[in-house]
Amino acid sequence: MLAEIKGLNEECGIFGVYGHTQAAHMTYYGLHALQHRGQEGAGVVVSNGQELKQAKGQGLVTEVLDENELMNLSGSSAIGHVRYSTAGGKTYENIQPLFFRSSTGSLAIAHNGNLVNANKLREELECSGSIFQTTSDTEVIAHLIKRSKQDVMIERVKESLCELEGAYAVVMLVENQLIVALDPRGMRPLSVGRVGSGYAVASETCAFDVVGAEYMREVEPGEILVIDDEGMHSDYFSKTKNRAICTMEYVYFARPDSNVDGNNIHSVRKRLGKKLAEVAPVKADVVTGVPDSSISAAIGFAEQSGIPYELGLIKNRYVGRTFIQPSQELRERGVQMKLSAVRKIVEGKRVVMVDDSIVRGTTSKKIVKMLKQAGAKEVHVRISSPPITHPCFYGIDTSNAGELIAANHSVEEIGEMIGADSISYLPIDSMVEAVDRQDSNPNCGHCLACFTGNYPTDLYEDSVPPYEKEQLIGAKN
Amino acid sequence: MLAEIKGLNEECGIFGVYGHTQAAHMTYYGLHALQHRGQEGAGVVVSNGQELKQAKGQGLVTEVLDENELMNLSGSSAIGHVRYSTAGGKTYENIQPLFFRSSTGSLAIAHNGNLVNANKLREELECSGSIFQTTSDTEVIAHLIKRSKQDVMIERVKESLCELEGAYAVVMLVENQLIVALDPRGMRPLSVGRVGSGYAVASETCAFDVVGAEYMREVEPGEILVIDDEGMHSDYFSKTKNRAICTMEYVYFARPDSNVDGNNIHSVRKRLGKKLAEVAPVKADVVTGVPDSSISAAIGFAEQSGIPYELGLIKNRYVGRTFIQPSQELRERGVQMKLSAVRKIVEGKRVVMVDDSIVRGTTSKKIVKMLKQAGAKEVHVRISSPPITHPCFYGIDTSNAGELIAANHSVEEIGEMIGADSISYLPIDSMVEAVDRQDSNPNCGHCLACFTGNYPTDLYEDSVPPYEKEQLIGAKN
Amino acid sequence: MLAEIKGLNEECGIFGVYGHTQAAHMTYYGLHALQHRGQEGAGVVVSNGQELKQAKGQGLVTEVLDENELMNLSGSSAIGHVRYSTAGGKTYENIQPLFFRSSTGSLAIAHNGNLVNANKLREELECSGSIFQTTSDTEVIAHLIKRSKQDVMIERVKESLCELEGAYAVVMLVENQLIVALDPRGMRPLSVGRVGSGYAVASETCAFDVVGAEYMREVEPGEILVIDDEGMHSDYFSKTKNRAICTMEYVYFARPDSNVDGNNIHSVRKRLGKKLAEVAPVKADVVTGVPDSSISAAIGFAEQSGIPYELGLIKNRYVGRTFIQPSQELRERGVQMKLSAVRKIVEGKRVVMVDDSIVRGTTSKKIVKMLKQAGAKEVHVRISSPPITHPCFYGIDTSNAGELIAANHSVEEIGEMIGADSISYLPIDSMVEAVDRQDSNPNCGHCLACFTGNYPTDLYEDSVPPYEKEQLIGAKN
Amino acid sequence: MLAEIKGLNEECGIFGVYGHTQAAHMTYYGLHALQHRGQEGAGVVVSNGQELKQAKGQGLVTEVLDENELMNLSGSSAIGHVRYSTAGGKTYENIQPLFFRSSTGSLAIAHNGNLVNANKLREELECSGSIFQTTSDTEVIAHLIKRSKQDVMIERVKESLCELEGAYAVVMLVENQLIVALDPRGMRPLSVGRVGSGYAVASETCAFDVVGAEYMREVEPGEILVIDDEGMHSDYFSKTKNRAICTMEYVYFARPDSNVDGNNIHSVRKRLGKKLAEVAPVKADVVTGVPDSSISAAIGFAEQSGIPYELGLIKNRYVGRTFIQPSQELRERGVQMKLSAVRKIVEGKRVVMVDDSIVRGTTSKKIVKMLKQAGAKEVHVRISSPPITHPCFYGIDTSNAGELIAANHSVEEIGEMIGADSISYLPIDSMVEAVDRQDSNPNCGHCLACFTGNYPTDLYEDSVPPYEKEQLIGAKN
Repeated sequence: MLAEIKGLNEECGIFGVYGHTQAAHMTYYGLHALQHRGQEGAGVVVSNGQELKQAKGQGLVTEVLDENELMNLSGSSAIGHVRYSTAGGKTYENIQPLFFRSSTGSLAIAHNGNLVNANKLREELECSGSIFQTTSDTEVIAHLIKRSKQDVMIERVKESLCELEGAYAVVMLVENQLIVALDPRGMRPLSVGRVGSGYAVASETCAFDVVGAEYMREVEPGEILVIDDEGMHSDYFSKTKNRAICTMEYVYFARPDSNVDGNNIHSVRKRLGKKLAEVAPVKADVVTGVPDSSISAAIGFAEQSGIPYELGLIKNRYVGRTFIQPSQELRERGVQMKLSAVRKIVEGKRVVMVDDSIVRGTTSKKIVKMLKQAGAKEVHVRISSPPITHPCFYGIDTSNAGELIAANHSVEEIGEMIGADSISYLPIDSMVEAVDRQDSNPNCGHCLACFTGNYPTDLYEDSVPPYEKEQLIGAKN
Repeated sequence: MLAEIKGLNEECGIFGVYGHTQAAHMTYYGLHALQHRGQEGAGVVVSNGQELKQAKGQGLVTEVLDENELMNLSGSSAIGHVRYSTAGGKTYENIQPLFFRSSTGSLAIAHNGNLVNANKLREELECSGSIFQTTSDTEVIAHLIKRSKQDVMIERVKESLCELEGAYAVVMLVENQLIVALDPRGMRPLSVGRVGSGYAVASETCAFDVVGAEYMREVEPGEILVIDDEGMHSDYFSKTKNRAICTMEYVYFARPDSNVDGNNIHSVRKRLGKKLAEVAPVKADVVTGVPDSSISAAIGFAEQSGIPYELGLIKNRYVGRTFIQPSQELRERGVQMKLSAVRKIVEGKRVVMVDDSIVRGTTSKKIVKMLKQAGAKEVHVRISSPPITHPCFYGIDTSNAGELIAANHSVEEIGEMIGADSISYLPIDSMVEAVDRQDSNPNCGHCLACFTGNYPTDLYEDSVPPYEKEQLIGAKN
Repeated sequence: MLAEIKGLNEECGIFGVYGHTQAAHMTYYGLHALQHRGQEGAGVVVSNGQELKQAKGQGLVTEVLDENELMNLSGSSAIGHVRYSTAGGKTYENIQPLFFRSSTGSLAIAHNGNLVNANKLREELECSGSIFQTTSDTEVIAHLIKRSKQDVMIERVKESLCELEGAYAVVMLVENQLIVALDPRGMRPLSVGRVGSGYAVASETCAFDVVGAEYMREVEPGEILVIDDEGMHSDYFSKTKNRAICTMEYVYFARPDSNVDGNNIHSVRKRLGKKLAEVAPVKADVVTGVPDSSISAAIGFAEQSGIPYELGLIKNRYVGRTFIQPSQELRERGVQMKLSAVRKIVEGKRVVMVDDSIVRGTTSKKIVKMLKQAGAKEVHVRISSPPITHPCFYGIDTSNAGELIAANHSVEEIGEMIGADSISYLPIDSMVEAVDRQDSNPNCGHCLACFTGNYPTDLYEDSVPPYEKEQLIGAKN
Repeated sequence: MLAEIKGLNEECGIFGVYGHTQAAHMTYYGLHALQHRGQEGAGVVVSNGQELKQAKGQGLVTEVLDENELMNLSGSSAIGHVRYSTAGGKTYENIQPLFFRSSTGSLAIAHNGNLVNANKLREELECSGSIFQTTSDTEVIAHLIKRSKQDVMIERVKESLCELEGAYAVVMLVENQLIVALDPRGMRPLSVGRVGSGYAVASETCAFDVVGAEYMREVEPGEILVIDDEGMHSDYFSKTKNRAICTMEYVYFARPDSNVDGNNIHSVRKRLGKKLAEVAPVKADVVTGVPDSSISAAIGFAEQSGIPYELGLIKNRYVGRTFIQPSQELRERGVQMKLSAVRKIVEGKRVVMVDDSIVRGTTSKKIVKMLKQAGAKEVHVRISSPPITHPCFYGIDTSNAGELIAANHSVEEIGEMIGADSISYLPIDSMVEAVDRQDSNPNCGHCLACFTGNYPTDLYEDSVPPYEKEQLIGAKN
C-alpha cells in the first residue's frame, strides 16, 4: 500500500507451485511476499489436473483475492503474478497470468522481464492470422507456442523461447505440468525450491521463506524446467549461459531478506555502503538513509566510517493508494505526506544522506531541501551505485535517456542541481566487488547496461523509444 | 495499513488548528502523521466561525476522507482524532471528535487518554437526566460542560475538568474558539506550535513537521489554552503540575521522529538500546531488532556492543486490513504473512534479538521460534524496558494482569517460555536515565505504573476489570 | 433502487417485532417491504433481553445489512426504520432507530412523522442541561422520557408523549419491552399483527404479508401498546381520538398492496380513478398512467370511461442510485433516463394522462412534452387528488408554499403552464368518498391540510419555514 | 437491479452509434434502455477515428461506468453490450464487446444470439494456430475475420459470416467504420435509426426513444450494413431472407415500449391476452398478472373478458443484487422477498392469474400457493403462449429439456403440479395471429422451435447439451 517515491519500478514478480494440496493459497502467500515487485495488479491460475481456473484484478494481492475466491481455486498446481504497470497499460487484460483456452488444453503464462523483439514477432504473427487481445509482450510467447509444429509441449516451448530476445523469467501452467524458463542471459532472478513433496519457483527467495519452502538453487540461464507428477526435469534451450543478471536487483529492487545467486541482499547493500564509505569518505556527524531501500547501505556506511547511523528521514507507513495530495500552496508552506526529515536529529549537523540511486534527481533534490529546512548544516549525498546513464529495455521502468539526470549531466552538476554540499557515486568496479558472490562463482556476470550502455542483447527499433533511437541503435549496430 | 503485531495499543491521537485558511486539510495531514496512534477510525470537525461541520468514519484518515468531503469542510479552525478501538466498541458513534449540537452553540471534543472515574460521573449525570449515545468516556466531559452553571465557556470547561480523574489530552472546538487542555499530571503528550499566523496542537510533534508548523512548547500539566482571534491565552485549572508522562510513549508508541518534552524519540530509543548493551551484554554475532518500533534500540545496542546490526527480521510492508490468514495447517508448515526471519543473516549465528517490550509473550515466542527455524544457533532476547507487571488504566490497551506474562512469571520463566537462550530486561533506573531529557528538567516525571503498580491517580471500581479489582483497589486505597 | 421522479417524499417507515427467535431477520424483511417509504438510510436495534445492539447505515436495507451483521444481531425483539432525508440532514447520526445507552437500561426509538413543537421542546431541554447529538426531532422524545420523574417506563413515556404536538407513529425498544404509540390524531398509519406467538407492528400492512404476520388491527389515535412477555397491553395517553390520517398515504405514498384502516390502497386508487372519470370525462383514445403510483388510478379511469388503458409511459427499472445525468445538450436532443413515452401507443392519439398529484408542476410539464414529442395529438391531464395548496408539517417533504404550483396558480393556469390540452383535479368531496372505508367507520377522519390549509394541530413558529410564517401562523392563531 | 424471478433469460443487448460527438454517452444511455436484456456485465468500445478504447465490467451499465470513465471515452462512434451470463461463464473476459488489437487496426465485436457451430469452427481455428482467451462463441467471429484472405474489411466480414450457423445480431467497430449484421433468418431483433446526422443501431427500439434517435427500419435477415463517413451502405451476405424471429421476444423478453417489425410489444401482449380470454374463458372475479412482463397480457385478458383487472400480485421494486435470502424456516413461515399476493384483492375471490410462460413450473407453483394462502378461492392459470417443449440453442437460457415441465408433462398434469384450479395455454396459431404485424408483412416469419422442435437451422453435436443429444440430433438429421 506504500506509494513509491522513486522513479525506478520493477515490472513484475512471479511465483509457481506444483504438488501442494493448497496451491492457490501458497501462491497467494508467495505473491504477497513479492508484492514489492508490483502493486498494480495480481493474478493466480490454478490447475486441478483437469482444468485451469483463474482469478485476477487490479490492486494488491490481498485486495484482489478474498477467501471465497481462493477457496474456489482448488488444485495442486498454480502460478501467479504481481504487476507494476506503466500509465498506458493499466487495463485488466494485461494483468497476468495470461490465460488461453483451447480444446486441446489450456495454457497460462506469467512473465517477469521485457522482450526486445516483441513488436517484430507480433507483426509476423499478425500477418499469419493471429489476433491479440492485450498489449503485453507476453502474449507473443503464447502465440509462438501455439504456432509451433512440434508435437510435445516441451519442444513447442523450447522452439518458441529460441525466438525471443530480451529478459524473461517465465512460469507456465498447463493441466498437468508446471514449466519454468529463464532467458539465456539470466537477466532476471528466478529460484526453485522444495515444498513438502512438491516444488516452488519464485522471483525472489523471500517468497520461499514465507511459504515454508526450502531453497534448492537458481534456475540457470537458458534452462527450462518441467515439473510434473514424475518430478522435476531440467533441459536447456540455449547454449549461451553467461549470466548477466540485473545489478539493480541487488542495489534497489529485491527485498533485503532475499538471496540472489546465494548473496543476501541486505548484506550486499551493507557492503555497498561500506565500499562507499571507503571510496567517498566525508567528515560528518550523522549518517541517514533514504527509506526504505537505502537503510542497509546507510548502516554499512555508518559501520565503516564510524559516524553514527541515525533516523534522519522517516517514511509514513500509512501512505495508501488514494490520498489527497497537498495543494501547491500547502506544499510551499511545508506540508508533506510521505517523507519527513527529523529536525532533532539533523539540526546543526553535517549529514551523510545515503541513497541507492538517482534517476531523475527530482526526489533527491526534495530530500536534500527537506534536510536543510530541518536544520542540517551540510548534506553530503552518497549513492551506493554508479550514475544511471542509459535506459533499461529489460523490464525496468527507467525513464528515457532524456529524463535520466546522469545521462546529461556530470556528477558535479548533479550535486549542484540537487543542492548537495558534496556528492559521490560508488564506482562500477566497487559495486561489482560488493555484489559478487563472496565464494566467487566465475559464471556470475551482471548486466551493467544502465551504467555503461553495453546492452547484453541486440536492440530492435520498436523496443526503443524514439528519443534514444539514433544514439543507441546507431551505437549498437 | 500495517496490521499490528503487538499486544500494546495506544488509544488515540489528536490534532487541532486555529487560524489557517485550510484548517480541514491541515488536520487531514496532521492526523495522517499521527496515524500510528490509531487506525480504526478518524474524524474531523471544522468551524467557519458560524457553524461546525464534521466528517468521520471507520478506517484510516486517507480512507475516511476524500477530496470532495474535505473541500466541503471549509473553515479556519478544526480538530481531529484518530482512534484505536478495542473489540467491543467499534461502533460509528464512538469515533471522535464527538459532536454536540445546541441552539446556543455546538461543541466538538477529541480526547486522548482514559478517565478512571468516567463510570461514576456517568451514573451521576444519568441520574439527573442526561442521556448518552456513546460508550465513550469522552461523552462525560461534554455533559459536564453542558451542566455547568458557569457563564462563560472557559469557566464551564475548567469546572468540568476539575471533576475528571485520569489521563486526558483534549482539544475542543466551538464556533470561534479552540480549547486545549491536559490533565494535571500530563500523562499524555501534547504540544502546541505556530503555523503561519495561527496555531496548531498535536499529540506528537511529527504532525508539526508534516504540516510545516513550528514547535513552540509542550502543553503543561493542568494547563488550559484558549485560542481565538485574540491569540492564545493560557490558564491553569489545577494546582498539581507534577508531570507523570507515560513512559511507554518513549519506549513504544510515539513515532521516532517525534520529540516529547524536548527528547527525540529515536534518540531516546538508541540510548535505551545502549544502556541495555551495558547492563546486559552478551557474546553474539549479530544484533537484530523486531520491526518497526525496536529498530532504534537495536541500532543503539549494536553501536554500544560493537556487534554488527543486521536485518535479521523483516516485516511485509503490504499487510493490509483484510488478508487471508494462513490456516492452522499452513502455519504449521511454516507459512507466515507479516514477519520473516532472514535465513542468510541468522543461520549458524548467535543472535541478539532486541525488542521494546513483552506483553503476553506469544509474539516473542513466535519470533524466537522463527529465528531458530531459520538457523539461529542462539537467540538472546534483550528488552529495552522493564517487565510490564501491571495493567494500564490511562488509555493503553494492555491486557488485564492475568494476560501480562511478567505479572505472573519471573524473568527466567519468561525466557524459558519464549524459548530464548538468555533474556534480559532494562532495569527501571536505567530506563529513566535514558528517557530523561538530557538538559534535565526537574519537573519532568514519568508514569511508571505498568512497571511498578504505583498508579499516579486514584483508581475507581468501574475503571478496573474484575480480575484486578481485589489486588489493585485494595492495594491503592 | 429506483430514483424518485416526484417532488413528494415520505419521511419514514417503521417496523417492530416481539417474541420471534429471529427478530432481526424479521425486521430486515419487514423494512424491505417498507423501503418505498425511505431509501436514504436504514437501521435495526435488537434486544436479547439483556442488552440492545444496533446496526445502521446509509442506503437501502439490503445495502446496510449483510448476513454477518444480521447474524450478530441475535435476540427476540427488534425495531427498525427506513428513512428518507432532506438534503441538509443526510448525516449518519440522524439515521434511526436512535439509540441511547444508560446504566439503568438502554432505549431505542424509531419514529415516522414530524413534531411541530420539537424546536420549542428542544430549547427547553437544552436550557436545563440536555445535550443533543442529532438534528432529529425524535431525539427530543428520548430526552423527555429520560427527564420524566415517573417511576415506571410506561408512565414516563405517556407523560412525555403528552408534551408532543404533531404527527408521530413510534416504536420503542427497551431490554424487555416493545412500546408502540400513535399520536392523538392518528396522522400516520400504524398496524399491529400477530406473528407466531409474538407480535409485529408496521407502518403498512404490506410488511405483515412479507413476514408472514397476521393483521390484527390499526393502532388507534392516542393509544400506547406495551408488548412484553406478558403479552400486549393497551392504554391511552390522550382523550382525543379523532383520526385525521394523512390522505396522501392513500393517494400516493402507501404501497398498493397495503391496507390502511381496512382499505386496500390499490382499490382506493382505482376508485379515485373511477370518480375522476365521472367528474372529469374527456373524449380520448387511450388512458395512460404515470408510473408507478398512478397506474391503479389510470386503470380505474379506463374501466369507468371505457377508453382502453395502454402503456403510454414506461419507467426504466434499472435507474440506480448513481447514474450519469444526460448533459443539457443531450437532454435537449431527447436523451432521457427514467421515463419514456411509447411512440407506437400515443402517436396520433388523444391521450388521457392520469397522475396522482402535482407538486411543483415541473415533472408534469416534462411528461406532457414527452407525450407530445412522441406524437400524441392531445394530452388531457387528470389528477386523482385535489390541488395541493398548502405545505405539510407532519412529515412529508412538500416544498414550501412558494414552490407549490397550486398555491399560486389557478387550475387553468396550471394546465397552460404544463402544456396540457385540458386538466382536471378530483374535487375534495369525491376524493373523501373514494377513500372512505366502504363499510364506513364514522371515526375515520382524514387530514386534508395540504388541500385546505386546515391544519389539525397548532403550528409553532419554528416548525414553519420563513416563507409561510406570516400567512399560516397568522391564519391559524 | 431487479433479480429475475423467471427461469428464462435473454443473453444480450447490443447498441451502436456512428457520427455523434458524444458516442460513448449515447451508448451508455442506449445500453441502459436495454438493461433488461442482461444485467451481469456491460461494456463500451469507442473510436475517435484513430484508435479504439474500451471500458467494461461486471454489473449494470450504471455500475460499470462512471462519469470519469465515460469522459475518457471520447470519439464519434461506439458500440456497446449488456450481458446475461450463465453460472459457468461469469468471467471478465467474456464481457463484451470483445476487443482485439492489431498493428493493422483494432476490431471490437458485440453479439446477441448464439452460434450453433461455434465449437466446430473453434476446433478448426485452433488446429491452424489460433489461441482463444474467452469461452465466448463471439471470439470465433473475430478469428474468422482475421484469417480471411479477402483484401477489404467488408469482404472479410462477409466471408466470415457465411461460415456461421445460428442466431447473431452483431455490431462491429473498427477505427472508421461501424459494421452491422443480422443472421440470414433474422432470429434476433435489430433496428437501425438516425440520430442527428449520424446513425444508431439497437437490439430494441426503446433504446432509440431514450437517446432521441429516429427509427428507420429493421436490419434485414442476411443484411450487412457498413456505416462510415460516406453514410450507410447496405449489402447482403446471404440469399436466404426468410425471417424466423424469436417469438419469445414478443411474449417475454422485449421491453413493452419497444417495437419489433413494426409491432409494439405492449400491444402485441394485450392482443395475446385478449386471444387468451377468447380461447380459454373462465368465470372469475378478478384478473391479475404476474409482474412485470405479464401485466400487458393480463390487461388484455381483463378488457376482453370484462373481469376487472386488479393488482393481486406485487413485486418489490427494491430487490437488489445482494440481499439476504430468507432461511428455509422463515420461508415456511411465509417470509418472502420479491413477490407478494395482495390479500385484500384476492381473498374469497376466483382469480385469473395471467402469466406469459412456464419454464420449470417452480415459480408458478409458488405464486399459485401464495394466492391461495392470501385467500383466493380459485386460481385459474392462463398462459399467453404455448407450452415450451423444446430447448433453445439460439441465445436463450432455457434449461435443458429435462427441466422443461411441458417437455415431460401434459397441460393437465402441469395444472395439477402447480396447484391451479384450471390451466390453459394459448394455442400456437392464436399466438402467431396476435404477434403478426397487423399490416401483414408476408416475409415476417417466426421461430417457434421452443414450442414445436422445428429448429430453423442445422444443429451440431457440441451446441447441444448431452441430455438432448440423442433425441434432437437424431430427430433433426
